[in-house]
Formats: sequence, C-alpha cells, structure tokens
Amino acid sequence: MSAATSTVAPIAALVIIGNEILSGRTHDVNGQWLGSRLAGMGIPLKEIRVVADDKDAIVEAVNALRSRNTYVFTTGGIGPTHDDITTECVAAAFGARVVLNPEAKRRLEAHYGERHTDLNEARLRMAHIPEGADLIDNPVSAAPGFRLENVHVLAGVPSIMRAMFDGIAHTLTGGAPIRSLAVTSHVREGDIAGSLGDLQNRYPDTDIGSYPFAKGNRIGASVVIRGTDPHMLQEVGDQVAKLMRDLGEDPEMGEVA
Amino acid sequence: MSAATSTVAPIAALVIIGNEILSGRTHDVNGQWLGSRLAGMGIPLKEIRVVADDKDAIVEAVNALRSRNTYVFTTGGIGPTHDDITTECVAAAFGARVVLNPEAKRRLEAHYGERHTDLNEARLRMAHIPEGADLIDNPVSAAPGFRLENVHVLAGVPSIMRAMFDGIAHTLTGGAPIRSLAVTSHVREGDIAGSLGDLQNRYPDTDIGSYPFAKGNRIGASVVIRGTDPHMLQEVGDQVAKLMRDLGEDPEMGEVA
Repeated sequence: MSAATSTVAPIAALVIIGNEILSGRTHDVNGQWLGSRLAGMGIPLKEIRVVADDKDAIVEAVNALRSRNTYVFTTGGIGPTHDDITTECVAAAFGARVVLNPEAKRRLEAHYGERHTDLNEARLRMAHIPEGADLIDNPVSAAPGFRLENVHVLAGVPSIMRAMFDGIAHTLTGGAPIRSLAVTSHVREGDIAGSLGDLQNRYPDTDIGSYPFAKGNRIGASVVIRGTDPHMLQEVGDQVAKLMRDLGEDPEMGEVA
Repeated sequence: MSAATSTVAPIAALVIIGNEILSGRTHDVNGQWLGSRLAGMGIPLKEIRVVADDKDAIVEAVNALRSRNTYVFTTGGIGPTHDDITTECVAAAFGARVVLNPEAKRRLEAHYGERHTDLNEARLRMAHIPEGADLIDNPVSAAPGFRLENVHVLAGVPSIMRAMFDGIAHTLTGGAPIRSLAVTSHVREGDIAGSLGDLQNRYPDTDIGSYPFAKGNRIGASVVIRGTDPHMLQEVGDQVAKLMRDLGEDPEMGEVA
C-alpha cells in the first residue's frame, strides 16, 4: 500500500503508560524506536503522551488522540499484575466490554503448558480482551496485544513491543517515506539563523530544523532537512552547506534516521 | 519550604517540544532527569507530552497542563532559529505579548560581546520574553528561560536545561520526598501477581509496581514500592521479599531512584 491509495497523509500518536517512566526509574526507548520506524513508513508521529497507571489519565489520552490521528499506539500495562490496567482503560475509552478471548486463552495455555507453568488467575487476566478487538501476536511471551479500531495496544518491554509492531506493520497504510538529510559543522547556529529562516520560507514542503550541540569544548549545529522528495532535500542541503562554507566551515552532509 | 506549608500535594507536568524527538532522531533525556529530580523534591511528574514544533499543538498542551498541575515545565524551542517558537506559543497560551526584555538583552550583549560575536537579529530574538514573565538564568549560554505564572520555560540542550532547573529549584514548593524501594529476583511476575494485588490493597498509601525483565536467557521481575514513609516501604518490601523467597528465589532489596 502506498500514499497513492490514501488522499490524507497518515499520522500517528503514542501513549506510553507507566509510573516507572514518569518517576525516572525506567528510561523509555519505545518512543524513539516507534518514531523512527513510523517515519520510515511515511506515518509521522505527531504526539507522545506519557501517562501514569491511572484510569482517567489513560482513557483521556486514548480518546483525545484516537479522534485526530490515523493510528494510535499504546505501550505498557498489559501484564498480569494489578498495575496492568491498559486493557480495561482502552475498553472503557471505547465503551467496550472486556471478555475472555478463547484464542488468547488457547495461546496462553499452549505457552505455559510447554513451560509446565500454572495458568493461574493473574496470568489468565492477559486473555481478557475488549469485545470486537483483533489480537496482535506476541511471539516472545504469548500474551497478545490487540487492535480496537485505530488503537493498537502493545507491550511495554521493548523486545516484545518491537516484535508485536513488526507483526502488524503490514496492516498500516503508510505514506511516502520521510527522509532526513543532516548538514553538520562547527557553525554557531545564531550565524546562520536568518538565512535558514529564509530557506524554510522558500521550501515550505521541507521541514528544516537546527540542533545545536557541544562536543568537548567546541560547539556546532546540525541542520536537519526532512521531507519526502530526495531531490529537494539535496537542493536545500547544498544551500545549507554553502551557508556554512561561506563562514569558513567544512560541513558534513548525509542521510540520517 | 516543606509539605507542611501546603495542604495539597504538588504535582508537575512536562511539555517536550521538538520534531527531532518525535522523528526518533534525538533521544530525549530531559524527561527522565526531571522526573527523577522532581520525585526527590516530592513533586511527582504526572504527565509528559512530546509535541511538534507547531503552534496549535504547543498552546493546547501548555493550556491543558497548566490548569491541572502545580508546576509545568517546557523544554526546547527557545534558540535563535525559525523553528524555535516556544516563547511565542507560551505567550499565546496566556494571551500575553512578547516584548524585548532589557535585562535579557543586557545578558546577551555581555555574553556575545566577550566572544566578539555579533548580536544579530536572530540572536536578539532570544531576548524577547512574554510581558510579566520572570527570567530564568542560563549560566551556560546566557539566553534566559522564563517563568510565566506556573509555567517554566527551559532550554532543550540537557546541560543547559539542568543548569536552569538547578537555579530555580529553590523557588518550587515541594512535598515529602517520594522514595522507592526495589525488590528484584528471577521470579516470574505471574507467580506473585495475585499476592502483589492483595498487598497493594492492604497498603493504599504506597504505589506498588511490577516490572518484568529479561537478562540473557533468564527472566525476572523488579517490584518497586514507592511512597513517602520509609518504614512503610520497608514493611511492604519485606513482605514482597518473603513472597519471592517462598518461591525459592533469593531477592535483592534496595532503595532506587
């Protein structure tokens, strides 16, 4: 499927669920991975919300984002413990009931049976899925995610989240892949800021960002040009490189994630 | 200032502004740092929103969060380039005008003067601050952040953001510091999930989270107990450790960030 099949460019949002991210104990890596993966599919991530393990907060975030994005993803909160409340909250956002899903139960029975592990009441919670949802395969630890309309509920453990996403990626209708060209040197961004603003006005179909950095005791800036047309990116990149060379710098230019 | 001066426990939210975070190019580290720092001050972070360099998105996030949090912080988008629009957006959220701030201008003149660098129009943008705002010192690169009511506008570069926050930390009224005790072993969380839920019900003043992990080919779980009363944390921690020992595990227990 390509952008040609869709007249509106797809966009996405992510809800990251978990007190452990907000408290700083756990460093989220799912947002960066999904943002990068979705950009490559032409589905730019427009917003990320990190919310607590709190029903009202999760329901509000899911409802706010599902109405204005082509796709919404959630990560976290679908395990067997009392703090795993994502399933019931997503169901509540849709006004759906949570029911024992026979296929999900069969998968858990097979998984835990092979491991001679008791499929106790806590583990069986992971087979309770909103009515009408499609299961999302979990090739790592069996307990499935699910899709309800445009909301995709994924695990929080990064390796499992990635495997789940890879399994559903073909079901998402992407747009033209968004490419990024970076032009980097030890220029001070304040010296090129005016010219960059002019360039942005002349090339409204690209998105030009300037990111200062400090490495050791030298500062510099990466100018990143993003867009779907590689020729236009190169054209803008060449002009940014010229701005830097005119200031005596020797910029590096290359495609980036 | 202590919790005793305030009857309502303070809470905070963070707005991270920048396309480069959403595209996956840049990995945000400010959220984790602020979440951890604020927890230590007894000001739990309740929500993080990552939004694009887009006026409507920034204004909406700031307005949604400032009305229901004691403190709001923003990071990113206060540099000299065209994609730095945080200041005008925060001003718009309050209906405030952006004006040339004489003290901010003086700081930039001193900073760039020492470096024999032209304070051009782009750099002078960084001295434009919403009317009525207090400046937040930037000891690294001079261009100040600002506070407008309960919204604190900080830089996105982590070293600068941290220096800015350290400068204003004493102006925030904290609550009792939130402590975390982690109990970790190779237990499968499904084996203790039922008992953990019971413990959570018995200790509603603590927040018990269970976080599975996979290290090499072994799985396990960290149970993290969070709360303000160290004695209660120890009491719950001892009971979690007993649950694990009863299953033949040898748990490690200790305070964590």
